[in-house]
Amino acid sequence: MSNSKWVYAFGGGSAEGSADMRNLLGGKGANLAEMSSLGLPVPPGFTVTTDVCSYYTENDKNYPDSLGGDVKEALANIEEIIGAKFGDADNPLLVSVRSGARASMPGMMDTVLNLGLNDETVQGLARGSGDERFAYDSYRRFIQMYGDVVLGVEHHNFEDILADHKDEKGVALDTELDAEDWKVVCKEFTAMVEQELDKPFPQDPHDQLWGAISAVFGSWMNNRAKIYRRLHDIPEEWGTAVNIQSMVFGNMGESSATGVCFTRNPSTGENIFYGEYLANAQGEDVVAGIRTPQPLTDAEKEQNHTGLPSMEENMPGLFQELCDVRTKLEEHYTDMQDMEFTVQEGKLWMLQTRGGKRTAKAALRIAVDMATEGLITKEEAIRRVDPAQLDQLLHPTLDPDAPRNILGRGLPASPGAASGKIAFSAPEAEMMAAKGERVILVRMETSPEDIGGMHAAEGILTTRGGMTSHAAVVARGMGRPCVAGAGEMQVSYSKQTLSCGGQTVGVGDIITIDGARGEVMLGEVETIQPELTSDFGQLMEWVDHTRSLNVRTNAETPEDAETAIHFGAEGIGLCRTEHMFFDPERIIHMREMILASDEAGRRVALAKLLPYQRADFIELFTIMKGLPVTVRLLDPPLHEFLPTSDEEMKMVAEAAGAEVEEVRARAIALHEANPMLGLRGCRLGIMHPEIYEMQCRAIFEAAAEVTKSLGETVEPEVMIPLVGTKEEFDILHAVVDQVAKDVGEETGSELKYLTGTMIELPRAALRAGDIAEGAEFFSFGTNDLTQTAFGLSRDDSGSFLGPYQEKGIYERDPFISIDQEGVGELMEIATERGRKTRGDLKLGICGEHGGDPASIVFCQKLGLNYVSCSPYRVPIARLAAAQAALGVEASVNA
Amino acid sequence: MSNSKWVYAFGGGSAEGSADMRNLLGGKGANLAEMSSLGLPVPPGFTVTTDVCSYYTENDKNYPDSLGGDVKEALANIEEIIGAKFGDADNPLLVSVRSGARASMPGMMDTVLNLGLNDETVQGLARGSGDERFAYDSYRRFIQMYGDVVLGVEHHNFEDILADHKDEKGVALDTELDAEDWKVVCKEFTAMVEQELDKPFPQDPHDQLWGAISAVFGSWMNNRAKIYRRLHDIPEEWGTAVNIQSMVFGNMGESSATGVCFTRNPSTGENIFYGEYLANAQGEDVVAGIRTPQPLTDAEKEQNHTGLPSMEENMPGLFQELCDVRTKLEEHYTDMQDMEFTVQEGKLWMLQTRGGKRTAKAALRIAVDMATEGLITKEEAIRRVDPAQLDQLLHPTLDPDAPRNILGRGLPASPGAASGKIAFSAPEAEMMAAKGERVILVRMETSPEDIGGMHAAEGILTTRGGMTSHAAVVARGMGRPCVAGAGEMQVSYSKQTLSCGGQTVGVGDIITIDGARGEVMLGEVETIQPELTSDFGQLMEWVDHTRSLNVRTNAETPEDAETAIHFGAEGIGLCRTEHMFFDPERIIHMREMILASDEAGRRVALAKLLPYQRADFIELFTIMKGLPVTVRLLDPPLHEFLPTSDEEMKMVAEAAGAEVEEVRARAIALHEANPMLGLRGCRLGIMHPEIYEMQCRAIFEAAAEVTKSLGETVEPEVMIPLVGTKEEFDILHAVVDQVAKDVGEETGSELKYLTGTMIELPRAALRAGDIAEGAEFFSFGTNDLTQTAFGLSRDDSGSFLGPYQEKGIYERDPFISIDQEGVGELMEIATERGRKTRGDLKLGICGEHGGDPASIVFCQKLGLNYVSCSPYRVPIARLAAAQAALGVEASVNA
Repeated sequence: MSNSKWVYAFGGGSAEGSADMRNLLGGKGANLAEMSSLGLPVPPGFTVTTDVCSYYTENDKNYPDSLGGDVKEALANIEEIIGAKFGDADNPLLVSVRSGARASMPGMMDTVLNLGLNDETVQGLARGSGDERFAYDSYRRFIQMYGDVVLGVEHHNFEDILADHKDEKGVALDTELDAEDWKVVCKEFTAMVEQELDKPFPQDPHDQLWGAISAVFGSWMNNRAKIYRRLHDIPEEWGTAVNIQSMVFGNMGESSATGVCFTRNPSTGENIFYGEYLANAQGEDVVAGIRTPQPLTDAEKEQNHTGLPSMEENMPGLFQELCDVRTKLEEHYTDMQDMEFTVQEGKLWMLQTRGGKRTAKAALRIAVDMATEGLITKEEAIRRVDPAQLDQLLHPTLDPDAPRNILGRGLPASPGAASGKIAFSAPEAEMMAAKGERVILVRMETSPEDIGGMHAAEGILTTRGGMTSHAAVVARGMGRPCVAGAGEMQVSYSKQTLSCGGQTVGVGDIITIDGARGEVMLGEVETIQPELTSDFGQLMEWVDHTRSLNVRTNAETPEDAETAIHFGAEGIGLCRTEHMFFDPERIIHMREMILASDEAGRRVALAKLLPYQRADFIELFTIMKGLPVTVRLLDPPLHEFLPTSDEEMKMVAEAAGAEVEEVRARAIALHEANPMLGLRGCRLGIMHPEIYEMQCRAIFEAAAEVTKSLGETVEPEVMIPLVGTKEEFDILHAVVDQVAKDVGEETGSELKYLTGTMIELPRAALRAGDIAEGAEFFSFGTNDLTQTAFGLSRDDSGSFLGPYQEKGIYERDPFISIDQEGVGELMEIATERGRKTRGDLKLGICGEHGGDPASIVFCQKLGLNYVSCSPYRVPIARLAAAQAALGVEASVNA
Repeated sequence: MSNSKWVYAFGGGSAEGSADMRNLLGGKGANLAEMSSLGLPVPPGFTVTTDVCSYYTENDKNYPDSLGGDVKEALANIEEIIGAKFGDADNPLLVSVRSGARASMPGMMDTVLNLGLNDETVQGLARGSGDERFAYDSYRRFIQMYGDVVLGVEHHNFEDILADHKDEKGVALDTELDAEDWKVVCKEFTAMVEQELDKPFPQDPHDQLWGAISAVFGSWMNNRAKIYRRLHDIPEEWGTAVNIQSMVFGNMGESSATGVCFTRNPSTGENIFYGEYLANAQGEDVVAGIRTPQPLTDAEKEQNHTGLPSMEENMPGLFQELCDVRTKLEEHYTDMQDMEFTVQEGKLWMLQTRGGKRTAKAALRIAVDMATEGLITKEEAIRRVDPAQLDQLLHPTLDPDAPRNILGRGLPASPGAASGKIAFSAPEAEMMAAKGERVILVRMETSPEDIGGMHAAEGILTTRGGMTSHAAVVARGMGRPCVAGAGEMQVSYSKQTLSCGGQTVGVGDIITIDGARGEVMLGEVETIQPELTSDFGQLMEWVDHTRSLNVRTNAETPEDAETAIHFGAEGIGLCRTEHMFFDPERIIHMREMILASDEAGRRVALAKLLPYQRADFIELFTIMKGLPVTVRLLDPPLHEFLPTSDEEMKMVAEAAGAEVEEVRARAIALHEANPMLGLRGCRLGIMHPEIYEMQCRAIFEAAAEVTKSLGETVEPEVMIPLVGTKEEFDILHAVVDQVAKDVGEETGSELKYLTGTMIELPRAALRAGDIAEGAEFFSFGTNDLTQTAFGLSRDDSGSFLGPYQEKGIYERDPFISIDQEGVGELMEIATERGRKTRGDLKLGICGEHGGDPASIVFCQKLGLNYVSCSPYRVPIARLAAAQAALGVEASVNA
């Protein structure tokens, strides 16, 4: 690095850097250089590179030897262009010093303006501008900014002095102070700084400059910046650049102004110039919100019903110049730009351009429009839309302008927003919904028994569990908004209350939940219903032509299957048959089965369940019209179907014709210390093959019937869960084949089907080569694979997942985005070994990760055939799959 | 295989086979050939090879083309040596047909004697022997054996006829029947067989012979044989051989005899000839126990106080001949032999020799004696002792001759036997023990709270949980016998009863448990106390010179540590600090810590625990005298320390100065769905570093003190549990280092210590390369690694582990012997990656598998530095480690 170029100059119609040097110059510096090269009016300046930051950090806060000379030279270049001299008492050059990392990073030192002012040069500025008040106002601003962000003098010290001074003078506003006031303030400011720091405020502009540069580099390593980086996965080694630029002033009278603008509407995406400006103001005034900004265009003026004059009408020439800049920059960057400009005494200066932030709706529209306009390719349009953002378009959202009276917070477990009356139990929720009321189901946690109530509710709130708790998974599947694991809130079932921070609400009180932000609000907050625009349809058409991964859905109800088809699902990747047993009519027989003391008794009960299960499959197969349907055989431990309360036990005993004691004894016998790792999955099938036999019979009889009625071959994929050894698979594979043979003979059908397994245990991944000898497909059950690889229960990790992410132990919640280096390696091993045994092994994923963009990119790399996710995530998965096919690395924050 | 030699002849002083052809000829055939070659008097015969068995199985029960000719030729060879002809009406050759697999296998067809007899040849035999009764007795025996084992006619059919005949004749014993009677019986037998099978009993000796050969081969695939093979890991492809041998008769008068003998005493191992014989009897009579066998030697006669004459005095010449055979065979085989012989009219015939079964005590003595005698090397002596058998020598055992009234069965969870009165709770057990009573603690399952009661009890019985349940692990650690998971037995705490199969016992009733066999007996059964002989010391000395793996122990109490040192442990590989918190004095503070609402409160409680914990370590370090001690920081979820019953909660609340509701709320808050996968291990350390700080302080203060008092440097190894990511380890490593630095400064000591981690999660194994950047040692926690790799809870697998092994899904219980192809691969990966990062990484294992011989062999292969096991398994581990160093593949059934 010793021979590196440490400083890059720009301005005067040329630049040493360019936009593609973002890593070296930071975003701001690279774009300033680029604009300069494009011939746009950029105040001259230079960028100290990110390499200097790294050098500074690694060399105990020392700089490269040659840096001093380079900076001097670059300063001289500015002086020459501007015709002013840094530190000159008569005609002082003033500069701004700004940090500029590769990615925008709040938490670091941001900006020092007016640097170069001191007790002497301020007089030169006053003379030169002919405005003493402006000069001392600028000086006091500089002392405060520099004192605060460079010297570390606390903000309130300055505010106190200013307040005292205004009190003394009996005025309320800064604007009521005159030049003499500011002179006094400046004196008091410097005196205070000297007292605080025990050394004088630096008067030498070069000392000021190096102080500011060091402050920027130092701030890269401050705690706030470190935390921000960790939260946003920004590597420390990136470093920040520092931009030193000559000052321009938008506050030098009515021919001066400052503003921000977007090349297109960032809210709607419309191809209309959009922005705000303030006459006779500095940039910070626009942001500070002290004065109401004026519209940029006449159209905006009209739309906003404001009396304030637009720039278009006030400064038509400059406006036209700005319009030209708009066109030039958008064509140059081929993306919507967010620009800052200043007009100093009738001259337009461009201070910044960058890709503009936009709403999901705007992102979609801009991408599609730009591709239609020919500005970008369709592939580029696909890359431009963030799949995670797309989620916003599919669910109702809260009106962003509506006030929110926040009761508490939890995890954003299922997007969308909903308001309704509180119900503390599933039956109550169902009852209230039956009366036509909108309900929010509030539970400590949910269980499969609550499905009915969850369905009846508009939204779900739980105080326990994580992003992949039962409540969260089911809610996402149903498209119901859900806030989960709101640990700061307390539910008391006995008191029928929900409390947080001293506030308490009860049954029937209205609350609103925002499942995208994890917020719970008191009362009703207005929501906005989503509408899928033609842009959406257009983008999805391009997406489907681009991707190679198929997208299926996890669904077991006709409603979910229909929704998924509507959203473009290409089959069912996971039909969880256990969800089909919770219907009140059925759970009786299920419980009868569980309570049976022998196989014969179980078979009697199973025979009663068969017609229901067959009818379910007939409906699903009919909806899916020949698309593949993967049916997972019974997976959860049997005790999940048994009641827990005394009252329920009594009901069950009556229904099943058994003694309460018998029910209780059976429940106790089935109790497990760690049910996740107990008698479930294929272990049930091994111990009680008759259960799987019934399920296979239902599947195959339905397949035979729908094949006939639909005239389309239904090819079910029978999936055996929780396999850990080849022997388990082979034994149950034989059961499946036998039932298929029997049903084939009975119905006279030639049944086509595949038999495969979940890969959801580390051992299964390792032994995939063996297992693939029999298995025709693998579906990665990444929920359980994550639980077992990490030794981490989804339901019990809520208490430490947050701190773990804050401390950087888990980069991301491993239940949301696949832990690629751990769980991912197991998937790689399984893929490689499985395909080595069986070249045409069909591979998919049906864990919650199947809808996570970063995980989808990983699945594409692994070479899976499909991903399967909840119905509402199907469009997101389609988009992510297309991006993966285009080689996009998924955004870490997606 | 088409050109194979299918038949191997032996007899007449030579043989085509030899002892090393066991795989081809089976054990019996190979040894008959060997004896024949040695010039010993073996009745001539031939062996049909195991290859024929495989051919027969694979070719739909057809034989190789050339086999018929080969058999004919081999028969002719016998005829020539004996001077009789197969099927000859005047001088018939009779043969025995016996199966003989590579490993002895009950469950298969065993033996048919006297084959070659029919209605004609029986007359020839009568004439030749001059004993008609003998001839027809032989014939009826043949018809019954052949009918039963070859033709499948049920046994009782024969017994009924015989009984009827004796009734008719009014006699009680077979010996009271004469030649005419046997003639009638033979007739009735053949008539009955014809009626049962609807075809006549085969009269053609060649048909008889082929029928018997096919029956042997067929029996290889029968169900009993299949089950036996599965249970004993005998591969199906081994097949069995068939031995056809000319008959000799020990029942041809007083100059005839038959017997079995051992070259050394199989019970004590003494180098004394030992055996039994019967004059004028056939081999089966010795086994059947109808007549009391006579002693072989005068010494035995004296020892047994029997008036029966010994062979030594009755047949001195033959006895001397037999002694010569004894010497010859033992020197030849260099192992104690179990031999069968028959004397026919003054001539000695050797019918079988094989390695003799022996007790653990005898095995040890014989191995040590033979090595001392120079018959075998010390290495061979080490190989000869089965480590699993050694276990018997370390625990009291039940008198094998005492009658057992079995109440029920469970898993043989911890060896040894004990009798005592039933107690159904730990406090009760302690109370009863305090009164001087011997107690068996009977629980559904045990928890850490029961430790006191388990210690007070002589033995433990649980009706739930597996071989690695809490009860089993703790019992093995304490050396208490334990029967665990006795699912067929019911405990009712409310009724205070233990029931099984209609029998019920209650508090105070005496039961006996046999932890080596998993049996529970009513009443007291006499036990035999173990004594460690000088043989044991000698073997262990050889063992320690041979092995390269170190053997440590899992121990946390001074008692356990002393026991382990006594058994030769070379350090502590796992000190589970949580066990130190259950003492009544301490658990109060532990609970206070858990109930504290903030860190400050926790620190107050921890400060009270510090002196206890420090005292523990001082004691342990002092006992271990500078040997390495690995201390695992707190691992289990905190709720394990909280009480569950209302009454206990009240007590805790009082002691901790809290409200009962508070205790209950905290317990509810700490409740986890799957505690195995919840907030435990290093997660506790991350969330509450103050706990680990206290523990580290206790460790280092103790190390500093003992280093001074002992004059021996104590180098503790601090082990962080349940690490899944490098970050977790690094964060806690810093905590350890900080405390070490602090204590070092405070005490003025230079502390030496290592910081390492358990590898007990699949992800940790995969990321071992990263983790080893900071970790100085790894200890494989194979219990949890097995649980997570398989997704299998130790505590909840009891209900299906049995059927899983029966169905061959799990070859062995993976919690007892490492699943080498799954869990083992994770260990391989971790070893390779860890050592790649850190060449001198210290590797050990501290799961229950550390005491399992097969797993120890695997650990040697992996290149671990040490294994750590419960104190009572230390000698076993030492022996297994020596065997592993000698390249012994651990016996699958060990």
